[in-house]
Amino acid sequence: MQRIVVLAGGTGGARFLRGLKLAAPEAEITVVGNTGDDIHLFGLKVCPDLDTVMYTLGGGIHEEQGWGRADESFAVKEELAAYGVGPEWFGLGDRDFATHIVRTQMMAAGFPLSAVTEALCRRWEPGVRLLPMTDDRVETHVLIDTEDEGRKAIHFQEYWVRLRAEPTAHAVVPVGADKAEPAPGVLAAIGSADVIVFPPSNPVVSVGTILAVPGVREAIAAAGVPVVGLSPIVGGAPVRGMADKVLAAVGVEATAAAVAAHYGSGLLDGWLVDTADADAVPVVEADGIRCRAVPLMMTDADATAAMARAALELAGELTAEVAP
Amino acid sequence: MQRIVVLAGGTGGARFLRGLKLAAPEAEITVVGNTGDDIHLFGLKVCPDLDTVMYTLGGGIHEEQGWGRADESFAVKEELAAYGVGPEWFGLGDRDFATHIVRTQMMAAGFPLSAVTEALCRRWEPGVRLLPMTDDRVETHVLIDTEDEGRKAIHFQEYWVRLRAEPTAHAVVPVGADKAEPAPGVLAAIGSADVIVFPPSNPVVSVGTILAVPGVREAIAAAGVPVVGLSPIVGGAPVRGMADKVLAAVGVEATAAAVAAHYGSGLLDGWLVDTADADAVPVVEADGIRCRAVPLMMTDADATAAMARAALELAGELTAEVAP
Repeated sequence: MQRIVVLAGGTGGARFLRGLKLAAPEAEITVVGNTGDDIHLFGLKVCPDLDTVMYTLGGGIHEEQGWGRADESFAVKEELAAYGVGPEWFGLGDRDFATHIVRTQMMAAGFPLSAVTEALCRRWEPGVRLLPMTDDRVETHVLIDTEDEGRKAIHFQEYWVRLRAEPTAHAVVPVGADKAEPAPGVLAAIGSADVIVFPPSNPVVSVGTILAVPGVREAIAAAGVPVVGLSPIVGGAPVRGMADKVLAAVGVEATAAAVAAHYGSGLLDGWLVDTADADAVPVVEADGIRCRAVPLMMTDADATAAMARAALELAGELTAEVAP
Repeated sequence: MQRIVVLAGGTGGARFLRGLKLAAPEAEITVVGNTGDDIHLFGLKVCPDLDTVMYTLGGGIHEEQGWGRADESFAVKEELAAYGVGPEWFGLGDRDFATHIVRTQMMAAGFPLSAVTEALCRRWEPGVRLLPMTDDRVETHVLIDTEDEGRKAIHFQEYWVRLRAEPTAHAVVPVGADKAEPAPGVLAAIGSADVIVFPPSNPVVSVGTILAVPGVREAIAAAGVPVVGLSPIVGGAPVRGMADKVLAAVGVEATAAAVAAHYGSGLLDGWLVDTADADAVPVVEADGIRCRAVPLMMTDADATAAMARAALELAGELTAEVAP
């Protein structure tokens, strides 16, 4: 059985995983989920990326939106606002609240996030093993200029959701990552993987945050198996979201080739760019990363499965080459 | 301005207070609320009696039910059940959840229950000053016989809501009350009251629990103002709820006269019984408690206001007699 490890952010990662499950129905897929965008709201522990993966693969996602629950209502949020309790900019629905209530209650009882995530997944049956990157608290902060308070670090969610990534991000810091340990199972899954995939998730605040947990990058580099990524940038712009804003903060151009170079040939063995970016192929290959141009728009399940298949094929090529 | 202190439980106390506000629109009313039926559910602090008073006087109550919110939905509860997280027997609605989320968040931030209650009331504007009896944790437990575990203490809510008070209650214990202190403002309000009222709330698990907080009973007895109560028992049965079950546990008959004797003439100066219990009047008066028979069914706002007016009139009589 093929063992695949995927480092996933939210919507992009989750949708890719749905395609991957179709492309490799027999594979054992372990997802290492970003927790750097976790946030405490109303005293509750909210894990947007883990939940997006769980809801998407478990059939509970709001399809059009790409996050949150289908058939959602907002009575709790309305009431909180009536009490003058915010923030109002983070759209937690009633069904979603239940997930955060269960998670918070279990964590208060002493369970680590990994155990809580496993418990939540017993309901959702996502068909993958979903692990948080760490059980320790990591919170991505973004450094911006404000009119009244000068340069200031704010929570990633405030930057992303409230400010819609409009202010220039001067730095993106996964606070706490340097002292975090990979969650139980993360290093073992990487160590026994046949292929490691970076889906078209945000290279800075999703995949980058996971790689910032000490030991994860090293384990991937040392795994001795193909590491294949899919570009989240198509035609010089993010397919979804505002990845260009945070790429600028780390000095990386918003191009498919620049993102590959940012990961680097020390980590990445193969890279898929969209057919619109075919001219990036030789640039990426010059960096020592095998590159193919294939359609990278996750327009439907078939298109997404084809992307996943292309990634696994590229990995297969790379494996065959290094095989004795 | 007349200062009235009312010791209130849930639905009965709250409905009576609505009548009292109509009967004495100019009065300054302080409500000392029972917190012995508070419970932690899903990691959240739930205060059923305080909330019933707040919602009833603030216009948010589910009128027919007498507790919980009007126009309520149950998405959170459904989802919690889908996660296998209970208890399912406690009917928390989405709007209600928001109250508990705000309360729990404020308490986790270090605010005492009294400050939290004041903050919640800024939204509801109940037109009374609502104080919890104590900021300390008190939890009423009921001793019952179980088939599998023998005699066992369970939380009052489990007895009342889940078991519908069906098992015989061998004892009712307000756990923690002996070490609790009255919340800020409680003793001062009692000390400066012109009249103290026991509404037709449960004499054991509502008014009784408040009186179990050290200092409260003593302050009422020492206040030197009329203490007037209204019988929650009409024609030998509770008007609402299952007060007879917990009266039996403390060895008190479910009659209007027996409840008056249970409070005792050391505490109670005046007592209203229903016209159906007119023959209790001489019995109560023989105990040294002034007694009147008036209609005690809170069928509508006018009937309830008339009851409150009768209580205040009885208090007035008693005041006039002791006046120099």
